[in-house]
Amino acid sequence: MAAPATCADPAGRVQASFERQSIMRLLGASLDVVEPGRVDIVLPYRADLCQQNGFLHAGISTTIADSAGGYAAFSLFHPGEDVLTSEFKMNFLAPAKGERYVASGRVVKPGKRLSICQVEVHAYEGEQATLCVIGLLTAVRVTPR
Amino acid sequence: MAAPATCADPAGRVQASFERQSIMRLLGASLDVVEPGRVDIVLPYRADLCQQNGFLHAGISTTIADSAGGYAAFSLFHPGEDVLTSEFKMNFLAPAKGERYVASGRVVKPGKRLSICQVEVHAYEGEQATLCVIGLLTAVRVTPR
Amino acid sequence: MAAPATCADPAGRVQASFERQSIMRLLGASLDVVEPGRVDIVLPYRADLCQQNGFLHAGISTTIADSAGGYAAFSLFHPGEDVLTSEFKMNFLAPAKGERYVASGRVVKPGKRLSICQVEVHAYEGEQATLCVIGLLTAVRVTPR
Amino acid sequence: MAAPATCADPAGRVQASFERQSIMRLLGASLDVVEPGRVDIVLPYRADLCQQNGFLHAGISTTIADSAGGYAAFSLFHPGEDVLTSEFKMNFLAPAKGERYVASGRVVKPGKRLSICQVEVHAYEGEQATLCVIGLLTAVRVTPR
Repeated sequence: MAAPATCADPAGRVQASFERQSIMRLLGASLDVVEPGRVDIVLPYRADLCQQNGFLHAGISTTIADSAGGYAAFSLFHPGEDVLTSEFKMNFLAPAKGERYVASGRVVKPGKRLSICQVEVHAYEGEQATLCVIGLLTAVRVTPR
Repeated sequence: MAAPATCADPAGRVQASFERQSIMRLLGASLDVVEPGRVDIVLPYRADLCQQNGFLHAGISTTIADSAGGYAAFSLFHPGEDVLTSEFKMNFLAPAKGERYVASGRVVKPGKRLSICQVEVHAYEGEQATLCVIGLLTAVRVTPR
Repeated sequence: MAAPATCADPAGRVQASFERQSIMRLLGASLDVVEPGRVDIVLPYRADLCQQNGFLHAGISTTIADSAGGYAAFSLFHPGEDVLTSEFKMNFLAPAKGERYVASGRVVKPGKRLSICQVEVHAYEGEQATLCVIGLLTAVRVTPR
Repeated sequence: MAAPATCADPAGRVQASFERQSIMRLLGASLDVVEPGRVDIVLPYRADLCQQNGFLHAGISTTIADSAGGYAAFSLFHPGEDVLTSEFKMNFLAPAKGERYVASGRVVKPGKRLSICQVEVHAYEGEQATLCVIGLLTAVRVTPR
């Protein structure tokens, strides 16, 4: 992937930034779908990512949801701009139990400064998906000075 | 720590459950303060917990905030009861940059079924603390059947 | 509408409860769509419902969104049960400016005790709709003792 | 109150803007405390502001909480600047039942563009106060062009 950080290609810019998120490597998460305004991140189940009952910890499903939402916003930014999360809210609909988890971020309202994204996390057991998390997130566009 | 899971001692019950949260070991987080209705969790800085700019990932500060809030509620429950997070909302006030992070959870309104908690994360550089995250969380009491 | 409060008909039960929400009369809001798991409320523009710039006050778009979400949950309850809002989060995407506003509530995840709903408010200028508010809401089922 | 909208005095600027919020007149709400970074709004009970059980509608306690939070942020702005709410989240801790309600907004983190505020609503029965709502709000500073 040559010089993705400075090219206009959204997928390349998202991939380059994602690779700098060291926590994604620690968790074993990777980018799945990257389209303008939409990013999916996949995380295989691991026993060391869990809460007290062996379900994925709510903070970890939130971590991939946050990156999916932030990068969905980032995919619409100009080269050189960066993204920060201002706030998010997550509702946990079902225990996160499955062999893999997919976090999807989608821009509901792009903005010059603030972009509002909807995020979801599904747990997969084979091909069966359960919606575990639904959330809303505000991403801030950071422009170089 | 003898048989804490079945004793009335809140600190013992919190400690025993916290030790079953495998994610806390992976992140290197540990319990700090445990009082009835109040739990603090401390997380030392590590380069592998970061987002693209080297700050603690918002999802990871949320992970310790979620556990701090959940265990603050749990500390008021009866032995044998468990806790789940129903929802939370976090505002990120400053980049999480410091040598260690302390998440505090405090019960604002205990309830038979739902407990509302306020959570905060401070980043410490030496003794200087910066408030990085403020949030609200709903914890659900799960009673054995 | 004969004895709707005790009949099984969801639309009748929603209508009967809605008529007891005195604030809806004060604002001039009325029920539009009522289906199992989905309720829309319509509010015509009035100059006395506004904030300092003449847009609908965020709290008033929230008021109809809250009732739409709560009644969407309520529409799936049993006769005799009641609904309370536990919490909600709203993102304001655009100034609420139009000749009428439509709040839609839709149950994302029904539950024995907690139901999670997505809510939206669109502002209409003629047939042109602008999404002004998107939110998430937790409704609590209250069972008679 | 002579020309408050263009003077530096925060209380004067808040009062002048508050008087343009027509909804506050309709509800019967008025400013109570106005200090830099802190605003309280008081609302006497009225039967026509209620939900189906005769409690203050959650959207109406939210309406005064939103204005209290927004004006707390606004009180720290420069003359000529305006405020918009980007998002809020409210937890309802107890049914809002009392002879009057007081919404308090307090700036937790002022910012060049975004200010984060904590909001609370207490219901009063005589001198006895019950905390009914706790919330977090993001206010946006709007600068004249």
